[in-house]
Amino acid sequence: MRVILPAGTTETALIDGISAAGAAPELMEHTPSADVEILEYGRPTTTPVTPVSPNGCPTPAAVTRAVREVVGFDTTVVDAGLAQPTGAPTVDLGIEPGADVRAAEAVPGADAIFDRARSFGSSLPDDLLIGETVPGGTTTALGVLTALGEPTGVSSSLPQNPIERKRRVVDEALAASDLVAGDCEDDPLAAIRAVGDPVQATVAGIAAGALESGTDVTLAGGTQMVAVATALRHADVDEPLSIATTSFVEDEQGDRLGEACYRLNCELTVTDPGFDARDHVAMDRYCAGEAKEGVAMGGALSLVPDGRMDDVLDRLEAICDRLGIDADGGPGSDPEAETNPETEGDSGP
Amino acid sequence: MRVILPAGTTETALIDGISAAGAAPELMEHTPSADVEILEYGRPTTTPVTPVSPNGCPTPAAVTRAVREVVGFDTTVVDAGLAQPTGAPTVDLGIEPGADVRAAEAVPGADAIFDRARSFGSSLPDDLLIGETVPGGTTTALGVLTALGEPTGVSSSLPQNPIERKRRVVDEALAASDLVAGDCEDDPLAAIRAVGDPVQATVAGIAAGALESGTDVTLAGGTQMVAVATALRHADVDEPLSIATTSFVEDEQGDRLGEACYRLNCELTVTDPGFDARDHVAMDRYCAGEAKEGVAMGGALSLVPDGRMDDVLDRLEAICDRLGIDADGGPGSDPEAETNPETEGDSGP
Repeated sequence: MRVILPAGTTETALIDGISAAGAAPELMEHTPSADVEILEYGRPTTTPVTPVSPNGCPTPAAVTRAVREVVGFDTTVVDAGLAQPTGAPTVDLGIEPGADVRAAEAVPGADAIFDRARSFGSSLPDDLLIGETVPGGTTTALGVLTALGEPTGVSSSLPQNPIERKRRVVDEALAASDLVAGDCEDDPLAAIRAVGDPVQATVAGIAAGALESGTDVTLAGGTQMVAVATALRHADVDEPLSIATTSFVEDEQGDRLGEACYRLNCELTVTDPGFDARDHVAMDRYCAGEAKEGVAMGGALSLVPDGRMDDVLDRLEAICDRLGIDADGGPGSDPEAETNPETEGDSGP
Repeated sequence: MRVILPAGTTETALIDGISAAGAAPELMEHTPSADVEILEYGRPTTTPVTPVSPNGCPTPAAVTRAVREVVGFDTTVVDAGLAQPTGAPTVDLGIEPGADVRAAEAVPGADAIFDRARSFGSSLPDDLLIGETVPGGTTTALGVLTALGEPTGVSSSLPQNPIERKRRVVDEALAASDLVAGDCEDDPLAAIRAVGDPVQATVAGIAAGALESGTDVTLAGGTQMVAVATALRHADVDEPLSIATTSFVEDEQGDRLGEACYRLNCELTVTDPGFDARDHVAMDRYCAGEAKEGVAMGGALSLVPDGRMDDVLDRLEAICDRLGIDADGGPGSDPEAETNPETEGDSGP
């Protein structure tokens, strides 16, 4: 089992109210670069940001790293449009950051990205668990789902999901591409090109290539991975496909998540890491509905053997220490704050 | 413990007789790209070459991978001047392939490479074991040692080390840079710039940065790492430094290896993997003096706990299967052949 992490950016994250409420937008584009450093090294090494919300909620990369320290899985990060350098090793497929979905084309090279990612995916010998980190990614997920005519919602990193704001952005994005909902039903890459992000094209391509070569694929994420699975099914990729996410996404999405997976013929695995058993601000924030998922968190948690979750939570506490988070809400933590940056994948208003 | 693998190329490898005797030179520049795929995935995934000599001797990457499958260490590959794409993830420090040492400057950007590598090295939290893969690397090692005025020889991937041919190339290289032996005694980066390769500048920089930040550093390799250690000592890097290599290098170098380490105040670890106990062509070829070292092989072997070397050799046999090597000398193997390509780090006429 290998965890593949396409990491990228889209200018969609810079739309007012979409992301980084309360945080400096110019720092947000460093978040995926920091996430992959945390996954690789256990803390940011060269990036100027530490992805922790003002409330003391760490990026899901911290959780995925904690699982990795216990379970020891291999990881391979793919540069799926990073806007800033990272000290982590990445596979270079020549992918550029995505444009604002309200541009005529959000991902001009979507087809080429998909093809290169498919070729890479078909080259890999291991079964794959594919995650993502891309700020603004739930908005582009809603864009693709809408363009494909799929009637589902998307998640958020915020306890109160500003889904209406996302819908307005997507409406504007479709109009800028001369599209209406459902127009891309038979052409999922056209949906990604018009209103998606480069990470979607990368995840979809790697998954398609791996499935074609007989490798098992699990998409590790919540509603962003529902969008990718939808794109794959609309591209007539019919092989068995699984989605693994966290209980935090299910808590918000309710039956919609299982129904979407049923429609997509995707096996769904939901893992509850038991954060409520610990008195720690980082885990409290997840229990309060913040962050929820991203950086393959749910998929990584699904790999934890019975009886080892306590070790994962111990590791997570140690990682939070390294990220400067006090267990009871120390410097930088403000439990009363209502807003916080979108710093992860399945996240953002 | 993290294994760092700077991987790169130098046009020095294309000099007639320096490398790839019997193999197509145009394929050789793919070797480091293939090596890092083997390290990461257990076999080449996207490169068009499989680094196995006509005799059936696999790249040391196969051995390092075998250790990794048993011991489970983390690896980070640094692109230190790859000339061809690789499907493995690499850290991008903006490093270009090296020129022929007989050019006026073999590594025009040596100082900038060293600085970026030092910054990267100082950012890493783990103790480091630093290897290399660069075809032609023993010739550039001889170049740097000579420019620094150090009286030592270098190893070879061939049972018969064509050291005189290397010396003639180095003489020509020094003349092309208006240098004589010892001229760079006080300026090791000038030695690398004139007659070295970009991997040396990268290894030296990472080691210097890591040592400055209090991290333990082991240089994993034979005479190429003696050259890097010499450069570091001439740069007044005085922290404790270790070199870990294979018994195959020691068998060839004899007392010279230990004497060089003594002069450099470097602890030396030599590991014999016990290949002579197996009846397998790949291991026979190492016992006959082929390949010897490279891709952090000796350092990786030093990590094998007591009683686990047999598991490593089992894994190596499985990897050789994947690389198309028959245990008793199958397709592509010709035990009578005298020549074979330099496909690894500490190697090449």
